[in-house]
Amino acid sequence: MQLASGQKLLFIGDSITDSDRSKPEGEGLFHALGRGYVSFVDGLLQATYPELAIRVVNKGTSGHTVRDLKARWQEDVIEQRPDWLSIMIGINDVWRQYDTPYITDYHIYIDEYEATLRELISEAQSIVPNIILMTPFYIEPNEQDAMRATMDQYGAVVKALGAELSLPVVDTQAAFNKALAHIYPATLAWDRVHPGAGGHLLLAKAFLKEVGFVWDR
Amino acid sequence: MQLASGQKLLFIGDSITDSDRSKPEGEGLFHALGRGYVSFVDGLLQATYPELAIRVVNKGTSGHTVRDLKARWQEDVIEQRPDWLSIMIGINDVWRQYDTPYITDYHIYIDEYEATLRELISEAQSIVPNIILMTPFYIEPNEQDAMRATMDQYGAVVKALGAELSLPVVDTQAAFNKALAHIYPATLAWDRVHPGAGGHLLLAKAFLKEVGFVWDR
Amino acid sequence: MQLASGQKLLFIGDSITDSDRSKPEGEGLFHALGRGYVSFVDGLLQATYPELAIRVVNKGTSGHTVRDLKARWQEDVIEQRPDWLSIMIGINDVWRQYDTPYITDYHIYIDEYEATLRELISEAQSIVPNIILMTPFYIEPNEQDAMRATMDQYGAVVKALGAELSLPVVDTQAAFNKALAHIYPATLAWDRVHPGAGGHLLLAKAFLKEVGFVWDR
Amino acid sequence: MQLASGQKLLFIGDSITDSDRSKPEGEGLFHALGRGYVSFVDGLLQATYPELAIRVVNKGTSGHTVRDLKARWQEDVIEQRPDWLSIMIGINDVWRQYDTPYITDYHIYIDEYEATLRELISEAQSIVPNIILMTPFYIEPNEQDAMRATMDQYGAVVKALGAELSLPVVDTQAAFNKALAHIYPATLAWDRVHPGAGGHLLLAKAFLKEVGFVWDR
Amino acid sequence: MQLASGQKLLFIGDSITDSDRSKPEGEGLFHALGRGYVSFVDGLLQATYPELAIRVVNKGTSGHTVRDLKARWQEDVIEQRPDWLSIMIGINDVWRQYDTPYITDYHIYIDEYEATLRELISEAQSIVPNIILMTPFYIEPNEQDAMRATMDQYGAVVKALGAELSLPVVDTQAAFNKALAHIYPATLAWDRVHPGAGGHLLLAKAFLKEVGFVWDR
Amino acid sequence: MQLASGQKLLFIGDSITDSDRSKPEGEGLFHALGRGYVSFVDGLLQATYPELAIRVVNKGTSGHTVRDLKARWQEDVIEQRPDWLSIMIGINDVWRQYDTPYITDYHIYIDEYEATLRELISEAQSIVPNIILMTPFYIEPNEQDAMRATMDQYGAVVKALGAELSLPVVDTQAAFNKALAHIYPATLAWDRVHPGAGGHLLLAKAFLKEVGFVWDR
Amino acid sequence: MQLASGQKLLFIGDSITDSDRSKPEGEGLFHALGRGYVSFVDGLLQATYPELAIRVVNKGTSGHTVRDLKARWQEDVIEQRPDWLSIMIGINDVWRQYDTPYITDYHIYIDEYEATLRELISEAQSIVPNIILMTPFYIEPNEQDAMRATMDQYGAVVKALGAELSLPVVDTQAAFNKALAHIYPATLAWDRVHPGAGGHLLLAKAFLKEVGFVWDR
Amino acid sequence: MQLASGQKLLFIGDSITDSDRSKPEGEGLFHALGRGYVSFVDGLLQATYPELAIRVVNKGTSGHTVRDLKARWQEDVIEQRPDWLSIMIGINDVWRQYDTPYITDYHIYIDEYEATLRELISEAQSIVPNIILMTPFYIEPNEQDAMRATMDQYGAVVKALGAELSLPVVDTQAAFNKALAHIYPATLAWDRVHPGAGGHLLLAKAFLKEVGFVWDR
Repeated sequence: MQLASGQKLLFIGDSITDSDRSKPEGEGLFHALGRGYVSFVDGLLQATYPELAIRVVNKGTSGHTVRDLKARWQEDVIEQRPDWLSIMIGINDVWRQYDTPYITDYHIYIDEYEATLRELISEAQSIVPNIILMTPFYIEPNEQDAMRATMDQYGAVVKALGAELSLPVVDTQAAFNKALAHIYPATLAWDRVHPGAGGHLLLAKAFLKEVGFVWDR
Repeated sequence: MQLASGQKLLFIGDSITDSDRSKPEGEGLFHALGRGYVSFVDGLLQATYPELAIRVVNKGTSGHTVRDLKARWQEDVIEQRPDWLSIMIGINDVWRQYDTPYITDYHIYIDEYEATLRELISEAQSIVPNIILMTPFYIEPNEQDAMRATMDQYGAVVKALGAELSLPVVDTQAAFNKALAHIYPATLAWDRVHPGAGGHLLLAKAFLKEVGFVWDR
Repeated sequence: MQLASGQKLLFIGDSITDSDRSKPEGEGLFHALGRGYVSFVDGLLQATYPELAIRVVNKGTSGHTVRDLKARWQEDVIEQRPDWLSIMIGINDVWRQYDTPYITDYHIYIDEYEATLRELISEAQSIVPNIILMTPFYIEPNEQDAMRATMDQYGAVVKALGAELSLPVVDTQAAFNKALAHIYPATLAWDRVHPGAGGHLLLAKAFLKEVGFVWDR
Repeated sequence: MQLASGQKLLFIGDSITDSDRSKPEGEGLFHALGRGYVSFVDGLLQATYPELAIRVVNKGTSGHTVRDLKARWQEDVIEQRPDWLSIMIGINDVWRQYDTPYITDYHIYIDEYEATLRELISEAQSIVPNIILMTPFYIEPNEQDAMRATMDQYGAVVKALGAELSLPVVDTQAAFNKALAHIYPATLAWDRVHPGAGGHLLLAKAFLKEVGFVWDR
Repeated sequence: MQLASGQKLLFIGDSITDSDRSKPEGEGLFHALGRGYVSFVDGLLQATYPELAIRVVNKGTSGHTVRDLKARWQEDVIEQRPDWLSIMIGINDVWRQYDTPYITDYHIYIDEYEATLRELISEAQSIVPNIILMTPFYIEPNEQDAMRATMDQYGAVVKALGAELSLPVVDTQAAFNKALAHIYPATLAWDRVHPGAGGHLLLAKAFLKEVGFVWDR
Repeated sequence: MQLASGQKLLFIGDSITDSDRSKPEGEGLFHALGRGYVSFVDGLLQATYPELAIRVVNKGTSGHTVRDLKARWQEDVIEQRPDWLSIMIGINDVWRQYDTPYITDYHIYIDEYEATLRELISEAQSIVPNIILMTPFYIEPNEQDAMRATMDQYGAVVKALGAELSLPVVDTQAAFNKALAHIYPATLAWDRVHPGAGGHLLLAKAFLKEVGFVWDR
Repeated sequence: MQLASGQKLLFIGDSITDSDRSKPEGEGLFHALGRGYVSFVDGLLQATYPELAIRVVNKGTSGHTVRDLKARWQEDVIEQRPDWLSIMIGINDVWRQYDTPYITDYHIYIDEYEATLRELISEAQSIVPNIILMTPFYIEPNEQDAMRATMDQYGAVVKALGAELSLPVVDTQAAFNKALAHIYPATLAWDRVHPGAGGHLLLAKAFLKEVGFVWDR
Repeated sequence: MQLASGQKLLFIGDSITDSDRSKPEGEGLFHALGRGYVSFVDGLLQATYPELAIRVVNKGTSGHTVRDLKARWQEDVIEQRPDWLSIMIGINDVWRQYDTPYITDYHIYIDEYEATLRELISEAQSIVPNIILMTPFYIEPNEQDAMRATMDQYGAVVKALGAELSLPVVDTQAAFNKALAHIYPATLAWDRVHPGAGGHLLLAKAFLKEVGFVWDR
């Protein structure tokens, strides 16, 4: 298990990360961590490693793209000084190209996505010892689907950046693909983006695997 | 893993089980399974064994005691014809003795608790192939605390019934005790009864261990 | 134009038809006809044939399957004595097989679908002079998609019944397919089922074409 | 069909245009375009010319007069840089003279109306290639009715400006008059101003006729 | 002044009478009498004849026609045993013919109106010593307007019944006509039916004149 | 009748005047004038003198004292430039001395009341041709009641100012006294301050008498 | 102190007793006892005699008169089998004579009040060992006030019944009179009936004095 | 009794003091003083010493620590110029160490607590003649409980400051301990911090004892 006692673990992202967290704090009593994978990572750490006292912070914001992250990176990441930082962004960057195709102002094309994400990671690396990248995903098994194909390209950007910068990458699309081999997308999420508890626990598992979490202790 | 493909797994209990489930169904789209350990068991099964297609049903109702379960046992358990049945009851049976001590009508003392629970299990055994008992719990580390001591007696009843009837028993109090060795009760639950995601995932883990769930597949 | 002055035109179906109509009437002032294709058929008739005084009634109910229609057929169709009857059902019959696959009680398989629909049409034919069938649809361009493939089978049942009973059939899936050649599904409907104004006007156009509506008069 | 692929079509006006659109954007997901003729123009374009990818923007605001448009012309029209601009204003300019006759501050008399409208059109012409004027209307068939007579004068101003500036004019009053030959005003709108779906589709038809829309393709 | 000390004065009618009264009582504390002419008659009696102690009861119900009054005549009039009874009905009987012309079930044509009203008056006369009839009205000055013309016919029925049965008749249409000579309908009521405080005070004045009310005492 | 055609009549005061008026305008459609005596003055003028076209404005604000009026006198009176101004203030100035006797900051004692009121009237007189003073009141018949006695002193200040400045004074307390000879206070107002329609019509009558209003025309 | 360990003390009455208690129970967690004197009696017993374990039940219902108590006496008093019963009724019996004087159906005159109260007490005496009567009250210091005078007569009935039946009587009017010697009624209650915490604590003190409560222990 | 006529008594603290008071005033009509011990002190003074006219002000704010008090000390204490000041703070200072142990930013450790409290008292002493300190408390009878032990240390700081500065100290923990000898914590407060009426009356009694309050007068 790589997380050490008393460390601060910060998640940043979009509505998948947000999941109705408290704003602006993103930590504290009751459902401050939201109802999604961040809350489940926190809960599984608490239930399994109660002695570690990990401080989890959720800085996801619904609807955000990498461009929005840039605008709040200083406040929500740098000034937070986390020991661990997890970044999952890109779903809205792609989705807007497919649900509001005529409003091009809303689209973040792949060049801007890659450049901005590289810039944000670079800025964070100077102060955050551990960074984990999570790919964006789309709960659609058909690789020929136009939006899935685009999402895969954005995921490839994340994986390439991970390789380039020697950062671990959680391949969330691969994790969903395993489930999609047995389950139709609408069972997981009517809109193929916002899953229920099953999809969020799948994300939590994928993340925890990356940090060496052991279920049976 | 003991759960087989296509089986129906029904949980019955009080507010810990309920966790804001849909009524009366307790299954279906969106948050029909509530936000607690039942939903987490379902989600972990979906995320880990997507091929199994387990049907999870939540029949918890906030505030209920074993006496209330008796009144709806026919409709909510027998007529549901589950393959697996999990029973966790007793917290309110005890709690009312401690939070409304003067209203004795609300109290379910240990003899009635044991007799009713035995009767309900017996009735279920004729049609349910697999029954799992879960002890009630109290998120209080001090064994000399009056309510904790009483809760332990009720838990002992559950364990004795399990032994007598050769049914598996999930010792939820023991599971919480491990966490309480490191965490103060108020971190888990202000009222020492209704935990957040951490406590519910702890319950889900304890249940899943009993059915042979394997995290890494 | 086949609709004659003063005739009553009744639509029955599921949430696509319902679209937040008034209950139980389904006709009257304000948004009694809902906000979907029924309201648009009514509005286009009013705007184009103001002299015809067509009485439009909406008896769609969200979530309904053909089994639910059977339960209210006497009250909502037969006793209404319409001159024209439009039936569009089947989306939920199929969808529940894909979004709640484990709850088989919710599924209407194709044999029950066909038998019930035939029975309802037969019953209506004795009193309704004009009946129009509309196929169910799924806003998914990939014909290999499992749910789209099933929906196509249900649509084929409707088309076969139309041929057998000499009733006109509106092929709503074909109508959507034309749009899907240019537009990604998420632009039309996040859940690929409930479209915005564009999709409902497409349905209204497909229906009106069947009754000989002329736009430029 | 005059609208070309990828063009931006902006509507500005009062509550008839607004129809509960999202503010301030007036475009985007869900009911951002409101529930009136703008949404119907967009939907009919989507249903009929899916390949055109027209971007429709709604900048109507309830209660506004031409004086209010002037205050937001720079932000809501000029900075939007539309390819097409539709202007329908004047109903409140007249109505306030008849529903709050004593509050003269609310009245926009015909000289101010004409001068302001000419100024706004002139300003827009320098950057917007295509401008369409829509007359205001009043759903009252009696031409001797005082408010109808005034509204006709304001409509005449719009028509005169169209002629003077060689801009197409949609005569919405004429469109309503055809319907009023068969339908009593209260059927269309209790207040003779805000119609239901029928009246809004009539407006959409009148607009689309002007841009060469073809229903049957 | 014809009202005597301690008498009970009951008003029955439609939404004009109702004006958001308490249901079912129609009398009592706070705004039990609604916000319309009934409340103003009561208030003017209280302010002007405080010694009379008149008990005013409001049994108006929004949307009601003479057919609806018949269904509740026994409970809301006969069993109330008023000393004075005021009846104003007919607006909806006519209005539905003009705002929902295709739903003929909602229309009360003039023969049914006259017959039912005669029957209700006759039934009341056996127990109520004083009955006052109020004509229905429409806030439209154009006598050639179709709905106004029909309303005048219904008003003529009321006047004829008054003459036939020797009952006083308040000609509310005549009262509104005086105001309409100076005020445009939309100032009094956007829908030409439901006026503001001005129109309701006009009705109260017309009623009070009939019972010999003296303003300056 | 002293009010002339087209004049503007402005009422300023506390909650009795306010009566849930629209803010900040205090005039316009629907219930912009509130539900109290101002609305009744307006309605009685409209019903009785429809040709006069009086513009009534309500600038009452709940809870206000003469000190609060001073803070908004420039904006709510001077800049409004009314032809007629009615002032009724003082109830809260007195009431706070009796319902929150220990919070002396809330009390406006009689010297401040007189000086401020004189100052405000003086300022208004330079631009408002017609000013009418209305005394404050308390719906309590017992003149020895402490709060009634104080209110009478404040009323005497108003009457003295009227005499000194040759302004008409409406003695609202005297008007209520007549009613209180026959009616117990709780019938008019549970709190002896905020009356129902009866009390507000009594105030409207007292005001209208002062301006020469004639009921029967 | 007369209350003995484990006894049940039941209060019945009107809105003063009710004070927003839970319905139907009137006991239990949170604010089940309401926010008035019953809750304060309970709280002062708990704070002062924690060892006594008194069970307090609140059966007050807003708006009730002695006639309403009769209708629920069997269920709310007899079947509850309290050790102690406190009855405070009569305020609404009197108040309705003064706030809705014309609706005589709402009035409970003194003969019915006395007869019904005697009947209820008599019925209770057969099963309740300890009964305490509380007079109704009116927070008005002027004994010549009409409603106060009537309330005093009803209070005298209670006192006479107490003497006749040898039951203790809490003179709540006398208790309020002491405060009213120094405090104006509006400080205690705007409507002179429903006091704030001060008035309810005054009632609690008056009740507790009767049962021998000692503050300093 | 030490409180003298017309004095101002101000309470400052956290949610126990706040108890849903009005903000920002903390005094005035209705429930401006909240629903807790401050309101009960006020009510008991009003019921027992009506002649004293004590002005009670509540400046408690939920969730506050001594650090928060410092930020508003000037405005909420110094500028209020009370005659008496009661300070009860420290519960959140301790609680956050136990319910959000990982968010160390929220914790006020004992050195900061003591230093800040001393500074605030010192600042107040220059203008407030009478200061009363109240210890924080925890409704937990087990002195070995970690949070109770810490709370006792903070209470000891308050007692030491009282001794050092010759200020009276109300030992609220001692007061609760008496009740806890007979009552289980959950009866008083599910979270062992926010009690019902019983616990707040216990606090009111403890405070009043310190100022020489006599119950029987």
